[in-house]
Amino acid sequence: MESKKSPKKEWMNTSRIQTLIDGIFAIAMTLLVLNLDIPDFPSDVTDATLSTFLIGMIPKFYVYGLSFILLAVFWRVNHGQFHFIKKADMALIWINVSWLLFVALVPFSTILIGEYGDLQSAALFFNSNMFIIGALSFTNWYYAYKKDLTDMDKSPQTFRRYMGINLSFPLASLIAIGVSLVHPALSTTVYATIPIIKRIGDIITKKIHD
Amino acid sequence: MESKKSPKKEWMNTSRIQTLIDGIFAIAMTLLVLNLDIPDFPSDVTDATLSTFLIGMIPKFYVYGLSFILLAVFWRVNHGQFHFIKKADMALIWINVSWLLFVALVPFSTILIGEYGDLQSAALFFNSNMFIIGALSFTNWYYAYKKDLTDMDKSPQTFRRYMGINLSFPLASLIAIGVSLVHPALSTTVYATIPIIKRIGDIITKKIHD
Amino acid sequence: MESKKSPKKEWMNTSRIQTLIDGIFAIAMTLLVLNLDIPDFPSDVTDATLSTFLIGMIPKFYVYGLSFILLAVFWRVNHGQFHFIKKADMALIWINVSWLLFVALVPFSTILIGEYGDLQSAALFFNSNMFIIGALSFTNWYYAYKKDLTDMDKSPQTFRRYMGINLSFPLASLIAIGVSLVHPALSTTVYATIPIIKRIGDIITKKIHD
Amino acid sequence: MESKKSPKKEWMNTSRIQTLIDGIFAIAMTLLVLNLDIPDFPSDVTDATLSTFLIGMIPKFYVYGLSFILLAVFWRVNHGQFHFIKKADMALIWINVSWLLFVALVPFSTILIGEYGDLQSAALFFNSNMFIIGALSFTNWYYAYKKDLTDMDKSPQTFRRYMGINLSFPLASLIAIGVSLVHPALSTTVYATIPIIKRIGDIITKKIHD
Repeated sequence: MESKKSPKKEWMNTSRIQTLIDGIFAIAMTLLVLNLDIPDFPSDVTDATLSTFLIGMIPKFYVYGLSFILLAVFWRVNHGQFHFIKKADMALIWINVSWLLFVALVPFSTILIGEYGDLQSAALFFNSNMFIIGALSFTNWYYAYKKDLTDMDKSPQTFRRYMGINLSFPLASLIAIGVSLVHPALSTTVYATIPIIKRIGDIITKKIHD
Repeated sequence: MESKKSPKKEWMNTSRIQTLIDGIFAIAMTLLVLNLDIPDFPSDVTDATLSTFLIGMIPKFYVYGLSFILLAVFWRVNHGQFHFIKKADMALIWINVSWLLFVALVPFSTILIGEYGDLQSAALFFNSNMFIIGALSFTNWYYAYKKDLTDMDKSPQTFRRYMGINLSFPLASLIAIGVSLVHPALSTTVYATIPIIKRIGDIITKKIHD
Repeated sequence: MESKKSPKKEWMNTSRIQTLIDGIFAIAMTLLVLNLDIPDFPSDVTDATLSTFLIGMIPKFYVYGLSFILLAVFWRVNHGQFHFIKKADMALIWINVSWLLFVALVPFSTILIGEYGDLQSAALFFNSNMFIIGALSFTNWYYAYKKDLTDMDKSPQTFRRYMGINLSFPLASLIAIGVSLVHPALSTTVYATIPIIKRIGDIITKKIHD
Repeated sequence: MESKKSPKKEWMNTSRIQTLIDGIFAIAMTLLVLNLDIPDFPSDVTDATLSTFLIGMIPKFYVYGLSFILLAVFWRVNHGQFHFIKKADMALIWINVSWLLFVALVPFSTILIGEYGDLQSAALFFNSNMFIIGALSFTNWYYAYKKDLTDMDKSPQTFRRYMGINLSFPLASLIAIGVSLVHPALSTTVYATIPIIKRIGDIITKKIHD
């Protein structure tokens, strides 16, 4: 009774937004499967026809797997961030909602690239989607860090390290956008290089600052 | 053993209904993407055709973004309400279920306005859906406040402030319904003005009561 | 260290199955909206055509609302049961999984009755689906009660009261199945009478046992 | 303040990955219903036609039920594993993400086998999907056990027992793959024999080691 709440203190704790994030990721990841649709073959379809069809779907399976893994990476990175973020203000909530808007768009980008991955506009759309997700993810961490919403150790070393982790994905998607202009169908392979970029980034930041 | 439950006390705590709410929002927000479907182009489709198609989809992307943000706003407002609501009776549960029924309808309204947003009946349907959501959201807060299900400070100032917050959305959608009758395609832009309406509302209620 | 787990004690607590239940309900309720699809009108469709189409969809909106509310009722009843159920054995888990199998079928039954609700086979299918859900829900409570998995007061009064609550839905769907044989299109209106049946049931059980 | 986190300790606790798992299972299980689609009959369709159609759908209902139950089994087994697993390293996270990738593929495999279950390639695809899920589930347990991420009693008896539980499913799907080569339409009935295989496995391991 003595602690009647007044509206001013209506801060959001981070568990609320995290529940929404987990839900949207689980759904977006599962909806990717709707990309894989099966035509209505006539009822006397032969096994050879179906086999050929399934083998022809390999590019779609590749794109399904790629998007699934990329979404899992985003989810993982976001959870890594919220491991440190302890308070949320309105701006942080809306950075995350905007980010989710592009996360929920991934099933669409995935269909696009699954069907027309050899066309530049499809590859550009997919990679731009990834870039925006990466950039907003970086913004989330950078904003929380600067606004002191985290309980993170604020030494320059930690800052540099997290700068690297959070910039590697937007960087990779910028490269993928570049590759889209030259060879659209190959552009998505860039994401496989993220771990390598990360390692190089680690070495460079070490070299510069040590 | 001494605390064997008798059926009379079977009250619902609010965490249960909140779990259902979070789930339905995550799904409704992610299903919006199904609005964005891609026709089966012939396999020799050119990049120019696909680009033109994607640019032609801009109104659909706008509607996708709009509905996503509006759903995020509803979710945010509801969480703000349950920050204060500490008990739930049967009426409160059913106010929330009815509200969810119209929340889950948003992916349909969004497809309607995405395809036929320049027609009056589509705009009226979408904006009426928004109005009902806003009105039931207001009812949720007002009922909980009057029935003393909240732990909120019950001063007139707090009441006026929350009246404003919870009435601004139904009001905006009433205006959008009005605009639908004159210029359907513009009606959804009304929602961008909510923050402005809110500010004016704050000033007016202050003026009147100070 | 001293509490190393041995496989024998691997009991499930009820929170696990409840999470799955909440998830499946949120999704099934939101998927109902996919029942409401919009044909591809030509781009010069008039407002009159769209209005007529939307008005013609009223039976589908009715079925959407009905299934949404019925699912909310099942969810509510199940949560009422798990308010008392404190332990779960394998049989209880599988009663709930079977129940969920028919809960997840509701979006299909709903499309069926939304499109062909005036045909006997559609009405029978929908109402049988509801009956099985109700019967398995009753089984869940009865099994938990008999096996002492609840922390419920076990007086005859409590037992009679819960018998009534848990039997009213399967009973209503049996009546709806009966009505399907005579007048399919009317059969779903039976569910609106559940609160009345419940009241009568309360009075009868009181009369008999007092 | 004294416990400012440094990035090194950024371990994931298992509750995070479990939330994602529960979400993806709930969705995958509910999406199975999209397998059951209804053609657009002409509006004067007779009850006889609809009845015949529904009876003709029995193989699809069987496959729906089978996949729903199999997913419930995987979910159950995974929860059994996380009852013991108390820490997660990166490898464990990615074992689980890979596993989820194939879990989320089940609605696709289910459509495939529901439509073309008498063709070898469809049966092989479905059963291979099940095998990979089972094999990754085994890997999850084995890795956690060997890396000491569990709080499980590590006696040889416990190890043998869990070996049996976690190997029975991949084994059953290997047999189903074998049956696919001879009689595709019968291959899925193999899964009904898992409880029997488990029992035999229990007896054999007992015989050998006692």
